[in-house]
Amino acid sequence: MNNDRVNASIITIGDELLIGQTIDTNSAWMAQELNKLGIWVKRRVAVGDVWDEIWNALDEESKQSQVILITGGLGPTADDITKPLMGSYFGGKMIVDEGALQNVKEIFEKYIKRPMLDVNLKQAEVPDVCTVIQNKRGTAPGMWFEKEGKVFVSMPGVPNEMKGMMTDYVLPRLPKMFALPAVVHRTLLTAGIGESYIADRIKDFEAALPQHIKLAYLPNFGMVRLRLTATGKDETEIIEEVDRLFIELQDQLQDVMVINEDKTLEEAIGILLAKKEKTVSTAESCTGGYISHLITSVPGSSGYFKGGIVSYDNTIKENVLGVDADTLDNYGAVSEETVSQMAMAARSIMKTDFALAVSGIMGPGGGTEEKPVGTVWIAVTGNKETVTRKFQTRYNRNRNIEVTAINALNMLRQSIINDEG
Amino acid sequence: MNNDRVNASIITIGDELLIGQTIDTNSAWMAQELNKLGIWVKRRVAVGDVWDEIWNALDEESKQSQVILITGGLGPTADDITKPLMGSYFGGKMIVDEGALQNVKEIFEKYIKRPMLDVNLKQAEVPDVCTVIQNKRGTAPGMWFEKEGKVFVSMPGVPNEMKGMMTDYVLPRLPKMFALPAVVHRTLLTAGIGESYIADRIKDFEAALPQHIKLAYLPNFGMVRLRLTATGKDETEIIEEVDRLFIELQDQLQDVMVINEDKTLEEAIGILLAKKEKTVSTAESCTGGYISHLITSVPGSSGYFKGGIVSYDNTIKENVLGVDADTLDNYGAVSEETVSQMAMAARSIMKTDFALAVSGIMGPGGGTEEKPVGTVWIAVTGNKETVTRKFQTRYNRNRNIEVTAINALNMLRQSIINDEG
Repeated sequence: MNNDRVNASIITIGDELLIGQTIDTNSAWMAQELNKLGIWVKRRVAVGDVWDEIWNALDEESKQSQVILITGGLGPTADDITKPLMGSYFGGKMIVDEGALQNVKEIFEKYIKRPMLDVNLKQAEVPDVCTVIQNKRGTAPGMWFEKEGKVFVSMPGVPNEMKGMMTDYVLPRLPKMFALPAVVHRTLLTAGIGESYIADRIKDFEAALPQHIKLAYLPNFGMVRLRLTATGKDETEIIEEVDRLFIELQDQLQDVMVINEDKTLEEAIGILLAKKEKTVSTAESCTGGYISHLITSVPGSSGYFKGGIVSYDNTIKENVLGVDADTLDNYGAVSEETVSQMAMAARSIMKTDFALAVSGIMGPGGGTEEKPVGTVWIAVTGNKETVTRKFQTRYNRNRNIEVTAINALNMLRQSIINDEG
Repeated sequence: MNNDRVNASIITIGDELLIGQTIDTNSAWMAQELNKLGIWVKRRVAVGDVWDEIWNALDEESKQSQVILITGGLGPTADDITKPLMGSYFGGKMIVDEGALQNVKEIFEKYIKRPMLDVNLKQAEVPDVCTVIQNKRGTAPGMWFEKEGKVFVSMPGVPNEMKGMMTDYVLPRLPKMFALPAVVHRTLLTAGIGESYIADRIKDFEAALPQHIKLAYLPNFGMVRLRLTATGKDETEIIEEVDRLFIELQDQLQDVMVINEDKTLEEAIGILLAKKEKTVSTAESCTGGYISHLITSVPGSSGYFKGGIVSYDNTIKENVLGVDADTLDNYGAVSEETVSQMAMAARSIMKTDFALAVSGIMGPGGGTEEKPVGTVWIAVTGNKETVTRKFQTRYNRNRNIEVTAINALNMLRQSIINDEG
C-alpha cells in the first residue's frame, strides 16, 4: 500500500440502515466525488444509533484514514445522539451557533409555517470545537473537526443536504489540507461477453499495466464495464499515458465494445440513432414494456423513439400487430416466425427505420418440454434485413426480463451499426 | 443491550463498492431477512479487495457478532482474493468440490456454450474446512464456516446469486444454530399519503405500543409500508397480540391502505383483477412502458394484462390510438382531453375491462411556463366512467417516471375497487 495515499472512511449512522429500511446511496456518491480528488475510500461502516458503537467506529476509522466522513444521526429526535457524542469525543461543550439558529428560524418562517418547538431550536446547538457547515437545504448544521492532522466531518443523512455540504464546503477544502495526486479515469462498455473471457483476452495487457494504473471489471447483466484509473503527480503526463493504454484496450476489444465512454447500452444506442438520424420502435411480449422503458429513460429519447406495442396477449399480436393467426397456431407465440412478423409490423405501423421484437417465456410458469422457461426469440428489422436469434436464459422472472432486454438492445445496436443506408 | 441477542455483521468486499461504482442493495435485503428471523444487524462494513483489510474485518466483526455474512470477491479474476483468504483464515487447504465443478460444467454446457477457461475451473475450488453452498444461478459456490460457535458465510456479490443461497440454505439453517426469539411481522401497504402524515394520524397508537412490539415506516415513492414486529418467547402469545394491534392499525388507515400483506402495489392490483376476473390494458406516453413493465413483473399477470401501447410520439397517439388531431392541436399531448382519449382507445382496441393512460413531461427538457417539467395527466377508464387527474412531480427524470407509475397504478386500483359491475 502506498503510504502517501490519502484514505477516507465513511461512517453512516442510523438504525434504518441496519434494519434494511434504507438503501445507502450516499456512500457511492461520496466515494465517486472523493475519487475525483484522488482520495481513496478505504472502508465504509454502518452503525446504529448507539453511543458506544459510534464512538468505537470513530476510534477505529481514525486509525485507518485521514478523512472520516460521517452521515446521519443529526435529526431533532431523541434517538439522534451524534451531535453530543461528537462534542464529547472532541472535548467541547455545546453552544448555540448564531448562523445555524438564523437558518432554522428562516426555514420555519418560509416553508414550515408552524411555531418552532424546543427540539428545533436545539438543532442550532453545536460543540464549540467544530467549524459549523451551514445547511442551505435543511435545519441540521454540519460540523468540521480537525484532530492530529485528520479531518472529521459530520453531516445529515438526507442525500440532498449532504450533497450540498460536500459540494459547497467539504470537497473544496480537502485538497487544501492534503497533498493529493492527480487521478484520471477512462471507461468503456462491452456487451455479449463474460468477465472471464474478457480477462482471458486482455491478460497480457493487464499484466503489463504499470503499478499506478489499475483496471477494474464492473459486470452487470451481460455487460461488462472496464475502467482504467491512473494516479500520479503530473496530470498531463498521466492523461497521455492512460489515453495511450485506453486506445490499446479499445483495439483489443473492438468487436465487443459498445462505447468508449461511461455510458449505458441504451445511452449508446441513443447516441448512434441520433447521429444517423434514424428512429426505432418496439414490439414486446415477454419483456412487457421493459425495453421501451430502458430506451425512454434516456433524456432526449423522444428524438429517435416513436413508440412500442406491448402485445402480451396473443389477441394483441393478431389484432394490433397483425401477426397471422396461422403463424401463431403453427409455430406458437415464442417462435422465429412470430417475432419476425412482430418486428416488421411494428416498423411498418410506427413508421420507423428500425424495430425490435421479443417473445419468450420468463417464468416461473408457462414452460413446456419443447420450450422451457427462459426460451426467448428476438428479431430486429431495419430497412435492409431482419435478424433473428434464439436465447436461453436461466434466471428468475425479473432477471430473465432484464437479460432479455439487454440481448435485444445489443442486437438492435449491431443492426444500426451494420446498416449503411 | 440485550446479551441474549444474536447479532450479525455484514461484510461486503470489492473495490467497486469503494469507488462508488455499485450501490449496495444487498445489505438492505439481507438485514430485512435476518430481522424476520430475530437476528439484529449490528454493523455493516465495506472493504476493498485487499488481503489485510478483509482479514481485519473478519477479526473485528467476529468480536461483535455471532453471524458474519460476507458478500463479494468470489469472481474468477485475479483481484478476487476472498476464497484463498477464507481458506487461510480458517486454516484449510484448497480442494476441488465435485458438486461445484459439476455446476460450473453444466452452466457452460447448457448456457454459455463456449469452452471453459482455467479460471472457470478454479471456481470449483474451495477450502476443505467449509461446507459448500451450491450456486444454482452462477458459477461461484458459497462457503459456510463455523468457528467458536460463530457462523461465517461467504457468498457472491451478485444479488440474485446471494439471494438464492440465503433463501435456500443460510436462512433455514441459522435458527438451528442459535436460540432465536419468536418474531412475528405484520405488514400493510399505504399509498398516496406521506410518512409524517401517517405518523401524525397514528401517534396515539404508536405511543401505546408495548416495548416488545416495534413499528417501522418503510417509505418508497409515494407509498409507505408499515411493519409491526413483535418479539417474544411464546409465539402463539405474540401472534395473538400483534394481530389484535394490526387490526387496530388497519382500522385507522383504512382509507389509504392498499393491502394488508407484504405485497407491492402491482401485486395488489393483480390480486384484485384476478378475483374480479377483469382485464386491463395501458396507453403510456411519458412513462414509456414502465407501467406495463411493473404490471407484467408479477408472475401470472398474463391472466389479466392484455397489452399496452407506448405512444411516445404524437403520430402514434394519432395513428395507433386514434386520438383526434384536433385534440392534440388544441389541448396538447399533456392534457386531460388527450389522456382520456388514450385510455378509452386502449380499452376499446385491446378489449379490456379497464385501461389507464398517462401523458406528461418527465424532464430535464420539454417543460414550458404553462406546463413545467413534472406536469402529468393520468386517466383510468372502466365500464362505467373515466377518471382523470393532474399531478405535479418535482424530481429528476427517473424518479418522475417512477412516481407517475405509482400514481397511475393507485388510480387504477381505486377504479377497480369502485367498480361494482
